[in-house]
Amino acid sequence: MTQDEVLIATVIASWKQVTGRVSASLADATEERLDKQVAPGRNRVRYLIGHLTAINDRLFTGLEIGERLHPELDEAYVANPDRKLPDPVSAEELKKAWFDVTEKLTAAFEALTPAQWLERHTAVSAEDFAKEPLRNRLAMLLGRTNHVALHSGQAVLAK
Amino acid sequence: MTQDEVLIATVIASWKQVTGRVSASLADATEERLDKQVAPGRNRVRYLIGHLTAINDRLFTGLEIGERLHPELDEAYVANPDRKLPDPVSAEELKKAWFDVTEKLTAAFEALTPAQWLERHTAVSAEDFAKEPLRNRLAMLLGRTNHVALHSGQAVLAK
Repeated sequence: MTQDEVLIATVIASWKQVTGRVSASLADATEERLDKQVAPGRNRVRYLIGHLTAINDRLFTGLEIGERLHPELDEAYVANPDRKLPDPVSAEELKKAWFDVTEKLTAAFEALTPAQWLERHTAVSAEDFAKEPLRNRLAMLLGRTNHVALHSGQAVLAK
Repeated sequence: MTQDEVLIATVIASWKQVTGRVSASLADATEERLDKQVAPGRNRVRYLIGHLTAINDRLFTGLEIGERLHPELDEAYVANPDRKLPDPVSAEELKKAWFDVTEKLTAAFEALTPAQWLERHTAVSAEDFAKEPLRNRLAMLLGRTNHVALHSGQAVLAK
């Protein structure tokens, strides 16, 4: 691998590590566990999983690497607060969606070249990107990895 | 900048973004705020700040980029659970330690070359690193950035 391929592989390994921890705890999670709130008056674990799945799924379009797999999760888990809308899918379907999105995204990431990772993401205009070259695909992946870590820190508090 | 310098700068920008959010909320935080637990029976915000400051401070030695600035925080905030030991420093001193460590680490990161970022970190032997080249300095930085995000997600729950 070239130096920049190793750098990219290191970032993808970080994504795999953070999402892997969520996957491991989700694999065993009961419906009762998913329905717990992370703290009094706060989001349910299920909402956080739906939210993370939907936000990550948006990376397909955000990074222009594929089509959305689960747009049906956006209303309940991104556009609205927890329990504003009924859960659109069962707990089992939600788990499956998380695993599906995570697996397919990881495969898509591994297919990009370092040069592609340095291209702009879709939330920045070509004009702005010329002035801010760090607003690239890699920045979007790093942001979403941190976002998963942020909410998984909350999820561990649920009891 | 070369391609790999832009890749590194993008990762450092992510560190700055995640630590910047902690810095912004810490700047205004009252002592009352710091003494709140993130959820019933869980860590105080103050403990999380001490913990993050100490773990990040360990990057100086972990990445071989300098000397520890605040080793006095380790006992209370890394080696022991919250409130096992009395707080070793005042709230104001703790805030100052966070800002100091964050600022000096960032400067040290910006001085490393891409090749240095791909060298092994100190928690892996040369032998293991030959088989696992992704266990490099960059991986350690990414891990600590995710760790900050994880605990800051918990801190926002404190009320």
